[in-house]
Amino acid sequence: MPDPLITLTTDFGEDSPYVAAMKGVILSVNPGARLLDLSHQVPPQDVRHAAHFMAGAVPYFPAEVLHVVVVDPGVGTERAILYVEVGPHRLLVPDNGCWTLLPGEPMQVIRLAEPRYWRPQVSNTFHGRDIFAPAAGHLSLGLDPAQLGPAATSWVRLPVAQPTRTADGIVGEVVFVDHFGNLITNIPAELLDRPAAELRVGPVLCQGFTRVPTYSAAEPGRVVLLTSSSGFLEVAVVQGSAAQRLGVAAGAVVRVDFA
Amino acid sequence: MPDPLITLTTDFGEDSPYVAAMKGVILSVNPGARLLDLSHQVPPQDVRHAAHFMAGAVPYFPAEVLHVVVVDPGVGTERAILYVEVGPHRLLVPDNGCWTLLPGEPMQVIRLAEPRYWRPQVSNTFHGRDIFAPAAGHLSLGLDPAQLGPAATSWVRLPVAQPTRTADGIVGEVVFVDHFGNLITNIPAELLDRPAAELRVGPVLCQGFTRVPTYSAAEPGRVVLLTSSSGFLEVAVVQGSAAQRLGVAAGAVVRVDFA
Amino acid sequence: MPDPLITLTTDFGEDSPYVAAMKGVILSVNPGARLLDLSHQVPPQDVRHAAHFMAGAVPYFPAEVLHVVVVDPGVGTERAILYVEVGPHRLLVPDNGCWTLLPGEPMQVIRLAEPRYWRPQVSNTFHGRDIFAPAAGHLSLGLDPAQLGPAATSWVRLPVAQPTRTADGIVGEVVFVDHFGNLITNIPAELLDRPAAELRVGPVLCQGFTRVPTYSAAEPGRVVLLTSSSGFLEVAVVQGSAAQRLGVAAGAVVRVDFA
Repeated sequence: MPDPLITLTTDFGEDSPYVAAMKGVILSVNPGARLLDLSHQVPPQDVRHAAHFMAGAVPYFPAEVLHVVVVDPGVGTERAILYVEVGPHRLLVPDNGCWTLLPGEPMQVIRLAEPRYWRPQVSNTFHGRDIFAPAAGHLSLGLDPAQLGPAATSWVRLPVAQPTRTADGIVGEVVFVDHFGNLITNIPAELLDRPAAELRVGPVLCQGFTRVPTYSAAEPGRVVLLTSSSGFLEVAVVQGSAAQRLGVAAGAVVRVDFA
Repeated sequence: MPDPLITLTTDFGEDSPYVAAMKGVILSVNPGARLLDLSHQVPPQDVRHAAHFMAGAVPYFPAEVLHVVVVDPGVGTERAILYVEVGPHRLLVPDNGCWTLLPGEPMQVIRLAEPRYWRPQVSNTFHGRDIFAPAAGHLSLGLDPAQLGPAATSWVRLPVAQPTRTADGIVGEVVFVDHFGNLITNIPAELLDRPAAELRVGPVLCQGFTRVPTYSAAEPGRVVLLTSSSGFLEVAVVQGSAAQRLGVAAGAVVRVDFA
Repeated sequence: MPDPLITLTTDFGEDSPYVAAMKGVILSVNPGARLLDLSHQVPPQDVRHAAHFMAGAVPYFPAEVLHVVVVDPGVGTERAILYVEVGPHRLLVPDNGCWTLLPGEPMQVIRLAEPRYWRPQVSNTFHGRDIFAPAAGHLSLGLDPAQLGPAATSWVRLPVAQPTRTADGIVGEVVFVDHFGNLITNIPAELLDRPAAELRVGPVLCQGFTRVPTYSAAEPGRVVLLTSSSGFLEVAVVQGSAAQRLGVAAGAVVRVDFA
C-alpha cells in the first residue's frame, strides 16, 4: 500500500508562503502523507476557473486520493467548508461550487464543524492553513469523514451555460482559457455535424478560420477550430494565443454558423 | 518511519534547469529522499523576501524536515554556507540573513567546510547544485551535521524595522507583498487598539478605507485594513491588488492615525 | 528500494489542468509512482528551450529515474513518440529533438506503437495524457521497454551551432536565456584564453563589460562575462537581467574580440 496522497489546488501562487504553510500543517498531522501540487496558479478568487480546472483533472485520478481546493474568496465568512465524495473521488472544498462541474453524483457531503480537527487558533483570512490542511492530514490518517461534521443537505452549485443549436448554427461560450491561450467552449464537438461557414468569438469575426484535427494541421498564426482534449469545440491559433489574438476571455460568446 | 523530507526554496524560477539539477544531485546522493517544493518564485536575489517567506512557512513544519534555501546573490564569494538548527527546525542556507526572522534561538550553527560532502567540482555560480544539494542529501541519510564543518560563532542578521507608537497613531512599514497584492506590515494587529481615522501607505492617503474582519466584509474594490494570518496589520483591496492600486512595494511606510 | 520516480517537464503551465491530468493517469496505472516536477514553464512549443533544459537537468539524476518530456507542437501528427536510453538515463519524448543535446550515445530508442499501454481513447491534442502518461506508468511498474514498440533507427536531431574561433576572437551565439535573464552561450569558457577587448551581443556593443569569476565581483548593473555553471561563457548583468538590458533572446550572435 503506498502512502496516502493529497493533492493541492489553490490561487495562492508560489511567491507567498501560504502553500508552504499548508504543506507544513498537513505533514505535522501526518508525516507520511504524500503531497502533490496540481496548481497554485488559479487566477485569484476565480472560482469558475477552479471548477473547470478540477473537472479537467480529478476524473483522471485513482479513487483513494484526497483533493484539497482552496480558491476561497469567502474565507472567514459563514460559507461552509465541505468534505465531498463525488463518484469515486474525495475532496475538501469551500462551499462555492468549485467542485460541482465534476461528473457523477455526490455520494456524501459533510459540512466541517468539529474544531478538534482544526488548528487551535483559526484566523479569519487563512482557513487553508487552519482548517483545510489539518482536516486533510487527519483524513489521510484514516479518519472517518463523518467525524468532521454533520451531513450537508444543500450546497452552492456553479451555474452552467448550455449551448443552443438553431437552424443556422450553434451558440455557446468560452468556458476556459488555457495556458496556451486556447479557448475551450461549452459546445460538444459532435454538435457541429455540418461544415462551419462563419465563426465569431465575442465581437470578432474569425476570417479564414479552418476546422482541423490537430494544431499543426494549419500554418502558424491561423485561427483553427478543433476538438479539445475533453471533447468540446476549441478555438486556437496555431503556435500562438487565440485569447491574445482575439482579445477575449472566459465568458465570451462563441457563434458558429453552418455553411 | 517515512522517508526523510527535504524542502526547496529558491529564486531560480522554473524555466531554467537549476532546480531540476539540484533535485537530481540530492537524489543521486539519497535516492529515497522525499523532495518538496516550497517556492522557486522568490524574486531574484531578494533575501528579505526569502526571509519573510521562510518565517511564514517553516514554523508549520514538523521537526524532522530539512529546509534548503538558495536565494544567494553572494554565490562564489567568501560568504559562508550554514547548517542551522533554530528551535526544532533545520535549514541549509547562505549566510545572508534569510533565516534570521524565524522564531526561536539558534541551537547549532555550522559553517560548511568539508568538500567531501560536496560535488567534486564546485562552480563559482551554482553552489545550490554543487554544495547545498549534496550536503542536503548526506544530511538526509543521517550524517551528523557536525561533520559538515566547524561551529559558526557569528552570522549575518537581517535588520528588522520595528513599528513605533505615538500619541497620534502608529508608524510601521510594509514588509511583504503577497501573491494577491496584499500588503503585510510589521505592525502587530493588537497595537491598533483604537479606531483608525486615517491610513497612509507610502505617499497615498487611503480614502474610504475600513477595518474589517475578513476580505469579503466590504465591497469589491475597497481598501481594507485587517489582521493578517500571522497577526499583523494588512492592507488589502477586496478582490483586487493593494500593491497595484496604491503603487507601493515592500519598504513603504505605513501610518495609521487614531480617530 | 525506494518507489520508482518519474519526472515531468512540459510547456503546459500550471493554470491549466493538463499536468494534473497526466499525474492522475500515471497514478491510476501505478499508485506507488513518485512524481517529481522539473518544469511546466518551458515556453510554449519551444523545443530548443526544452532541449537545453533537459541537457542542464537530466545528467544530474541517478540512472533509475524516468524523465517524461511533453513539449510537443507536433501532437496528433505522424511524429513518433520515443522511449530513449541515452547514457544511463531513460526518457519518454516526442521525436522532435528535445533530448538530443544530452551527452552520451543512445543505447536504445523505441517507437511507441502498442496501444495496449495507452489510454483506450487517444485524443488528437493531448498525447501527454493519453500516451506518455500511461506508458510512463507501465514502465515504472517494470514493463520491458521493448514491449512498447519496435526499435527506431532514425530520429530528429536538433541542429547545434558551433562557435568559431578566428585570429581576432570568437563568434558564437546565445543558446539559452535563464530565469535571471543571464545569456548562456555555446562558447566553452576555456576557448577565451586571452583577454577580451570587445563584447557584442546581437547588435549591442557592451561598453564597460568586465570578465569576473562570480556575479558579485562587479557593481550592480554592470555587464559581466563569466563562466556558466555548465562551463560556457555567460553574459550577465549584476543583480539585473542581461536579456532585458541588451534586448536579446536565444539565437543572438555573440562576438568576443581579443585585446
